[in-house]
Amino acid sequence: MLYSTFMLKETLQQGQRRIDEALDKLLPSPMQRPESIHQAMRHSVFAGGKRLRPVLCMEAARMISGRLPEGIEELASALEMLHTYSLIHDDLPALDNDDLRRGKPTCHVAFGEAIAILAGDALQTQAYEVLARLKCPADARVRIIEEIARGTGTVDGMIGGQVKDLEAERQLPDAETLEYIHRSKTGALITASLVCGGIYAGGSHAEIQRLRDFGRSVGLAFQIADDVLDVTQSSEQLGKTAGKDTASEKATYPALFGIEESRRKAELLVQSGCGALDSFGSRANTLKELARYLVQRSN
Amino acid sequence: MLYSTFMLKETLQQGQRRIDEALDKLLPSPMQRPESIHQAMRHSVFAGGKRLRPVLCMEAARMISGRLPEGIEELASALEMLHTYSLIHDDLPALDNDDLRRGKPTCHVAFGEAIAILAGDALQTQAYEVLARLKCPADARVRIIEEIARGTGTVDGMIGGQVKDLEAERQLPDAETLEYIHRSKTGALITASLVCGGIYAGGSHAEIQRLRDFGRSVGLAFQIADDVLDVTQSSEQLGKTAGKDTASEKATYPALFGIEESRRKAELLVQSGCGALDSFGSRANTLKELARYLVQRSN
Repeated sequence: MLYSTFMLKETLQQGQRRIDEALDKLLPSPMQRPESIHQAMRHSVFAGGKRLRPVLCMEAARMISGRLPEGIEELASALEMLHTYSLIHDDLPALDNDDLRRGKPTCHVAFGEAIAILAGDALQTQAYEVLARLKCPADARVRIIEEIARGTGTVDGMIGGQVKDLEAERQLPDAETLEYIHRSKTGALITASLVCGGIYAGGSHAEIQRLRDFGRSVGLAFQIADDVLDVTQSSEQLGKTAGKDTASEKATYPALFGIEESRRKAELLVQSGCGALDSFGSRANTLKELARYLVQRSN
Repeated sequence: MLYSTFMLKETLQQGQRRIDEALDKLLPSPMQRPESIHQAMRHSVFAGGKRLRPVLCMEAARMISGRLPEGIEELASALEMLHTYSLIHDDLPALDNDDLRRGKPTCHVAFGEAIAILAGDALQTQAYEVLARLKCPADARVRIIEEIARGTGTVDGMIGGQVKDLEAERQLPDAETLEYIHRSKTGALITASLVCGGIYAGGSHAEIQRLRDFGRSVGLAFQIADDVLDVTQSSEQLGKTAGKDTASEKATYPALFGIEESRRKAELLVQSGCGALDSFGSRANTLKELARYLVQRSN
C-alpha cells in the first residue's frame, strides 16, 4: 500500500517542526554578540525552507533502524545550515544577484554584502561544530563529516556544480556538462543527506550503497523538476524571481530537452531511484513517496 | 640555553617546506575540473604565506610527544586552508577591498569575485574533509574538528572578530572591544592550532590547557604586533598596502595606546604566554622562540 498524500504531508510537517526547534537550539541566540551575524544567520535559516534535506536524512535513518534515532535532528539541522550557507552565497550580487528568496529579502539585501558573506561562512562553520558533537560514535561522526565535506566540495560536490553553472552561462552546455552541474550542485548534498542518515542509524555497507543509489537518481530528478518549475510557474508561486534561468541563459534541462522531455526524464529517474530501495520492502514507502512528491511539487 | 635565531629560521623553513608539500598533495590538482576554482584555491594558498599556524601546530605536537607525529602535516595544512579562506573573504570588495596580498593580486583580482567567494568556501570545506581523515583516532579527530570550528566561529572565534572589526570602523572602540576583536579574529585560530597539535600528539588535559594559555597570550600579542607593523612599515616591506588600518580608521592598538605602549603590551603578553609553558622545561624552547619572533618580526 502506498503512503497516502495526507500522511506524507504529516511527515513533512512533523519533520519541519522538529528541525526548526533543533535549529533554534543549535544556532547562537540573536542577542549573542556580535548580534548582527547571528541575526543574519537566523534570517536566512528561518526564511521558510521546506527542510527537504533534513527530512530525507531523518527518513533514511528511520528506514534503516525502524525509528528516529535519538539526536538525528542535530545531523539534519547541520545539513540545513549547509544548504542555507550555499543559498546565501549563491544569491550574492557577484553570483546570481537575487533580491528575493522564498518571498523574503535575501541576506545581503537585509544585512549588507559583508555580513551576508560572513553569515554564509559562519553557517558552514557552525554545521561542522554540530557534526563534531553528534550523539553517535566518533567513527560514525568522522565518516559523516567526510561524506558531507565531499558532497559540498569542488570535485563532484555542491561548489563544483556551482562553478560549472556560473561558467555555463551564456553558452548552452552539452547534456553531459548539464548532468554534471545538476548532480553536483544539488544532487550531491541530497545524496549525502540520505547516506549520513543511514550512517547515523548504523546502516550496513550494502544499505548505505542503496541509499546512495536512490540519492543519485532522486537528487538529479529534483533539480530537473526545479528547472521545469522555473519556466512554468510565476514568481509569486515560487517565492523567487521566475524565468531567471532563461533570462540569464542558465544551463537548464528545459532549454536543452524541452519541458515535456524534461518531465519524463525526472519521472524515469524517480522510478529508477525507488527501485534501489525495493529490498527494504514497505519500510521504504515514505522515502519513495517523498521522491515522487519532489518531482510533482508546484514550488 | 635559548634556541638560536639560526635554528629558529631552520625550523620555520623546514616546516614551511613540509607544509607546502602536504598542501600540494591535499588540494585538488589545477587540472581537475572545474579548473578555475582549483587554480584560485592554489593561487591564494601558494601566495607565499609564512605558514605560522601550521608551524605552531607542529611544534606544539613535537613539544608534547618529543617528535613530529606521523601525518601531523595534514592537520597543519588544514589550518592553513582555513586561514587562507579567511584572507580571501577578508580581501573582497564588500569587506576590506584589498587588491594586494603578500605582494600578489588578491584572489578576486586574479579570478573575479564569484570564484573568489567560492574558493574561500571551498578551502573551508576541504579543510574539514582533511580533518575527518586525519591519521589519529576518531575521538581525537572529532575533538580537533570541534576545537577548530569554535576557533573560527562567530561567538569567540575568527568570524566573530571579523564582524566586530567591520562594525568598529569609523568609531574608535574601547579597549575591551578591541581586545575581543584581536583575541577572536586572530588569536582564536592561533590558539586552536596549538591546542589541536597537542590533541593530535596525545597530550593530557593539563598539557592542552597550558598550550591554550600560551596561545591566548601569544595570539593577542601577534595581532598587536601586526597593528604596529601596519603603521611603522612601508607597503613594500609588508607586501600589502601599509597604513590601511589608519586610513579606514580600523580598530588598532596603536590608535588606542600609541606605538610604544602597544609594543610593551605585546612583549608582556609573550612573557606571560611563555610562562605557561615553563613546566615543559627545555622542550618548550622552540615555541617560546617562535613567540618572541612573532612580536619582533618586520613583516
